[in-house]
Amino acid sequence: MNVPHTDVVVVGAGVVGLSVAWRAARRGYTVTVADPAPGSGASHAAAGMLAPVSEVTYTEEPLLRLGLASLARWPAFAAELSGEAGVEVDYRTEGTLDVAFGSDDLAALGELADFMEKLALPVDRLTGRECRRAEPMLAPSVRGGVLASGDAWVDPRRVTAALLAALSRQGVTLVTDRVRGLAVEGDVVRGVRLARGGRVSADRVVLAAGAWSGSLDGVPPEVLPPVRPVKGQIMRLRGDPGFLGRCVRGVVHGSHVYMVPRGDGEIVLGATQEEMGFDTRVTAGGLWELLRDARELVPGVTELEVTDVFAGLRPGTPDNLPLIGRTALEGLLLATGHHRGGVLLCPLTADFIAGELAGEPAQDLGGAAAGPPVAAICSPLRFGPGRAISDPHRWKKEERGPSPGLRPGSPAPEAR
Amino acid sequence: MNVPHTDVVVVGAGVVGLSVAWRAARRGYTVTVADPAPGSGASHAAAGMLAPVSEVTYTEEPLLRLGLASLARWPAFAAELSGEAGVEVDYRTEGTLDVAFGSDDLAALGELADFMEKLALPVDRLTGRECRRAEPMLAPSVRGGVLASGDAWVDPRRVTAALLAALSRQGVTLVTDRVRGLAVEGDVVRGVRLARGGRVSADRVVLAAGAWSGSLDGVPPEVLPPVRPVKGQIMRLRGDPGFLGRCVRGVVHGSHVYMVPRGDGEIVLGATQEEMGFDTRVTAGGLWELLRDARELVPGVTELEVTDVFAGLRPGTPDNLPLIGRTALEGLLLATGHHRGGVLLCPLTADFIAGELAGEPAQDLGGAAAGPPVAAICSPLRFGPGRAISDPHRWKKEERGPSPGLRPGSPAPEAR
Repeated sequence: MNVPHTDVVVVGAGVVGLSVAWRAARRGYTVTVADPAPGSGASHAAAGMLAPVSEVTYTEEPLLRLGLASLARWPAFAAELSGEAGVEVDYRTEGTLDVAFGSDDLAALGELADFMEKLALPVDRLTGRECRRAEPMLAPSVRGGVLASGDAWVDPRRVTAALLAALSRQGVTLVTDRVRGLAVEGDVVRGVRLARGGRVSADRVVLAAGAWSGSLDGVPPEVLPPVRPVKGQIMRLRGDPGFLGRCVRGVVHGSHVYMVPRGDGEIVLGATQEEMGFDTRVTAGGLWELLRDARELVPGVTELEVTDVFAGLRPGTPDNLPLIGRTALEGLLLATGHHRGGVLLCPLTADFIAGELAGEPAQDLGGAAAGPPVAAICSPLRFGPGRAISDPHRWKKEERGPSPGLRPGSPAPEAR
Repeated sequence: MNVPHTDVVVVGAGVVGLSVAWRAARRGYTVTVADPAPGSGASHAAAGMLAPVSEVTYTEEPLLRLGLASLARWPAFAAELSGEAGVEVDYRTEGTLDVAFGSDDLAALGELADFMEKLALPVDRLTGRECRRAEPMLAPSVRGGVLASGDAWVDPRRVTAALLAALSRQGVTLVTDRVRGLAVEGDVVRGVRLARGGRVSADRVVLAAGAWSGSLDGVPPEVLPPVRPVKGQIMRLRGDPGFLGRCVRGVVHGSHVYMVPRGDGEIVLGATQEEMGFDTRVTAGGLWELLRDARELVPGVTELEVTDVFAGLRPGTPDNLPLIGRTALEGLLLATGHHRGGVLLCPLTADFIAGELAGEPAQDLGGAAAGPPVAAICSPLRFGPGRAISDPHRWKKEERGPSPGLRPGSPAPEAR
């Protein structure tokens, strides 16, 4: 199969790759997206929590800043996307309720709330009774909770469907084949080679293949993104609409469990985190763990119908931060390594990559908050030779000028 | 849809209905089978244990006798069926190992073994160590067990597939429509009426619709079989062949759990027993119960892939015995109410119904063992007017002569 030359080829049709393709196409670039099974990977497994506040952890403030910056873009992103695609994405803003059971749990959650308040995050502390008043299906043994009312959520399967519809309207070419490797000429990327033969030639390649982003042929080792698959098993249940009014989370037996309600009564119950390589088997042990923990959090879950069980692979990175931006290989950009945050971070990622394609100066998309700019936090160059990933000031070294921009609709050079 | 007149129409294409149709067709009768979704009900859910010995209970010796009589027919039934259909049914004879955990469980299992020995059933008592030597995947906490080496098992989905292939060879007509009701003229059944319109006219109707057998229009209330749906949820897992060498069973938290291995590494894990009406939802609680109990029995089950989850409806009866034979309505026979024993009892049921169709004297298909004949144990007439089901001698009242036989290939009377 030979596809006409385009400005950009995006490898991977999950929410990140599709969002990048959409934003690039809206800027006037011609775009091809290649994926053997669009929307079938981590995006199909994902619950869709947009919850940077309730998921904050002590050592990961850069990730929090990224999450908040992307969450701020979600309302407009969802509205534009739904408007263009004619597909609602079930964007909801009722927040996340994080609950504690034992007194140790409660103390830990209280300390986390202190930390959240220190960061000026909008959270409310609730007693056990207030938790149950907010969510009557919660277990009687809930001792207290923290409500992050700014957190939101979305249905990732609808987001994928909407993005595919929007891309179709924009005239983006979708190639349903696996990309085997990069097509490199000299030191410059010229496109990608397809598994069933043929290639897609392009001026820029955006690698957004999630957990598989490290598996392409033809990528120099020092440029190959250091992603690894982190398996997540998830269940979809069906109850009455209103079974839960917002996302609920808790730590049960030391493992995090969450339940995300949809408007149609679907409840997404997730998720395991397993280092199992490229293993997407749904296992008896995975389901057992989810069901055991969900029963503790919301006992009435046992009455719900099981409509789907699924395992996906998140693209994990060594520092839990994504890889977004230019690489040391000319023409290759990364939009991968989003781990548990692909759905949350896709508006930010897409805008950032679109800016990079145009050669715009790297902006601090995170706004006025203190700290390193997004370009530095997420730079794929941070894992390159000579870059110690433990260097807390590494971002300062990475400030750089704009790249030579790509003009939309640039004709294919004769040499290709 | 109008189907040509046949000698017999069988309502229901589960293992029982299909077996009856096969045996009737082999005797030369023209046969039609009607079912909206052949093989998709309880037969699709069933694990396929042929385990009358390990499933014996104190008050149900008639059911034991039926089971043993049908088990004795299984080797020839499986061989003939596989030969005719060209489909192997995975008939296996390595027996069932029933294990106990706590000392109370062990004492109860010891008493059951006493009872089995009193009935001259072939069982061996094993220590915990002997159990684990026989099945190394069993939990270390297993205290002892009873091996019923005469028990067998089969793959019900293969049995269904084989029966459908055999029926096709025999020229049996398969109508994939729901039977809405009986076609009765005067006091005689003349066939069935189909949901999509039209009817199938026949000299005899065999009602083998499992849990739905009590739902047909046009059946006089005193003839309507007293079956109720008993929901069973089941999981199919996949491991290495040899994960288990035989069926294992145990009582965990007061509920029975079993695991049935197939030659290809599939493990069937069953089954819940729920009185929920016509509810075939797979629920979070059902799967949780199965997984919890299976982990106690065989801890390594957590590593296995989950390949299928399913819920079926068993046709339960007031006395846990099936309904097989003539009814008070001329032309209507029952082959239903097999509850958990449909797969085990299908050879016996099919032979018995075929004999009834031919008007042969009711034989004691159970052989020389003491007790009432099969005809009396299973007679649908036992629930009719004036028949107290608690009367221990009721079978004596039901001995009767042969019915007027049906000649194979009888032409349709003009009146029809």
